[in-house]
Amino acid sequence: MNRLYIVSSGAGGVHYITPEARRAIAECEVVVSYTKYARELKSILEDKEVYTSGMTHEIERCTQAIEYAKQGKTTCIISNGDANVFGMATLIVELIDEKNLWDSIELISLPGVTSFLAAASKVGAPVSQDFAIISLSDRLTDINLIDKRVKSTLECDFVMGIYNPKSKKRILPYQNFLARLDEVEEKIAIIAQDVGRDEKENITITTTTELIKEDINHEKVGMNTIIIICNSNTKLTKNGLVLTPRGYLNKYETSGELK
Amino acid sequence: MNRLYIVSSGAGGVHYITPEARRAIAECEVVVSYTKYARELKSILEDKEVYTSGMTHEIERCTQAIEYAKQGKTTCIISNGDANVFGMATLIVELIDEKNLWDSIELISLPGVTSFLAAASKVGAPVSQDFAIISLSDRLTDINLIDKRVKSTLECDFVMGIYNPKSKKRILPYQNFLARLDEVEEKIAIIAQDVGRDEKENITITTTTELIKEDINHEKVGMNTIIIICNSNTKLTKNGLVLTPRGYLNKYETSGELK
Repeated sequence: MNRLYIVSSGAGGVHYITPEARRAIAECEVVVSYTKYARELKSILEDKEVYTSGMTHEIERCTQAIEYAKQGKTTCIISNGDANVFGMATLIVELIDEKNLWDSIELISLPGVTSFLAAASKVGAPVSQDFAIISLSDRLTDINLIDKRVKSTLECDFVMGIYNPKSKKRILPYQNFLARLDEVEEKIAIIAQDVGRDEKENITITTTTELIKEDINHEKVGMNTIIIICNSNTKLTKNGLVLTPRGYLNKYETSGELK
Repeated sequence: MNRLYIVSSGAGGVHYITPEARRAIAECEVVVSYTKYARELKSILEDKEVYTSGMTHEIERCTQAIEYAKQGKTTCIISNGDANVFGMATLIVELIDEKNLWDSIELISLPGVTSFLAAASKVGAPVSQDFAIISLSDRLTDINLIDKRVKSTLECDFVMGIYNPKSKKRILPYQNFLARLDEVEEKIAIIAQDVGRDEKENITITTTTELIKEDINHEKVGMNTIIIICNSNTKLTKNGLVLTPRGYLNKYETSGELK
C-alpha cells in the first residue's frame, strides 16, 4: 500500500531527529516540507524529490503530500518539533479522512522532541511539575477560549508553555496574556527563540514583571519564540539556572531517608 | 571540568533516542539508571560502568551520579521519556544546588520524546490543540491541587494527558479523576501502556464512559499507563483513528481557499 509518513523532526535542525524519523526519511521518495525546515534538513534530504511551500500554506502542503502518496510514491511530510503540538498531524488525518483514502494510503505518524521541552532542557529544570501548553494564535481558536485557558492555568499554578505568542499582525492575544500575568504574583519566565538552531538559538531567563514591562515591543518575542512561565515554587539556583522542585527534599533527606 | 549529563532516552526502548543523547552516552564512562531502563538500553551501554537501582530510589541514583561526576568520571543519568516530564532533571539540579557543586560539575541536560506525544502519534492526531499534562501521583503533590487541575483542565476543554494514574497502593487520586470525568460530557480517551516498548506496547481507543464504568479495576490502567482525554471536538475517523481537528476546515476549503 502507498505509504505516507508524518515525520516530527524535533525542535530546530537535526539535533533531535529520532532514529525512526531518520529511517522514514531515508525510505521516502518525496519529502514535503515548509521551506525553512527543508533547508535545515538539507544534509539528510539528498536524492529526494522535495516539495516546499511557505508559511500559512499548510493545506497546500498536506494536499500535495497526500497526492504524492496516492500516486504510489512513498512520501513524508515534515513537521518541526512534534507533529501533534500545533503541527501537521491533525490536518493530514483530517484531509485523508475527508477524502476517504484510508484504503489506499497507509499513514504512519512519528513523534518528536517538542520545542517546549527542548527549551526547558537548556535552562536547568524548569518544569518537573504539571504543565499546560497553549498557543496564543487566534487564527483558528476563539480568543476568549485562549484567555480562559491562560487564566485558569495561572490559577492552578501549572507551569505554562506558550507557543506562537505574537506576530506582526496578531497582537491582542499576547496583550491579554500579559494582562493575566499582571493579575498574579511575579513568576520566573523563560524566553526561547529558535531552540535547537545552533547559531540563532537565544534563551533568556527573566520574570513576568519584565515581560509585562516590555509589553508588545519585546524584541525577543515573535513567531519563533516559546515562552515558559514557571510555577510559584520555581526559583533560581546559586548559578542562575531555573529549578522547579518536584518536592522530594520537602519529604526526604538528601540521603534518601524519609524526614 | 567534570561533566554530568541528564539524558532523556525517549519513551520506551531505543526508538526515540536522539543523536545528541546517543553521543552523550557514548562519551560517558558511567551510566546511572533505573534498572528497567538500563536493561532496555543494553545494546548501547556496552563497555560502560552501569549503576542501577529500583523504583522510588531516585535520590539514591541522583546522589550516586553526582558522586561519580565529582570523582572525575564523565557520567550520565538516564531519564525515560523527557527528563523534565516527571523525570530526573529537577532532582539532579536540586541536589547539585543543595551541595553547591556548580564550580566542579558541568551539567548538560538533553530533551527527549515524552510518552504523551509518543502515545498520541500511534492513534492518529488526538492532540493538535492546547493541552495539559497532569500526574495523579500524590506522593509529592497535594491531592486537592491535583483534583483542582483536573477539574479546571476539563472545564477549559484542554486535551489532557495523565501520567502515573494509579498504583496498587495509590487509588484515591484516580477515583477523584474518574469522578471529575463523570461531571462532564463523554469524551474520547486513549489508554497507552508501555509506549515504545515493542512487544509490550498496548494502546486502546475508548471513551470516558468506559473508563468510569471499569472504575479502579481497569486492567489496562497501572503504573506504566498514560491516559489521554481528548477535547469536545475530537472524533473518530472513518477507519477508527482519533482526530482532534485544529479548525482549518472550518475556515478554509480543502483547496486552501478561504471559505
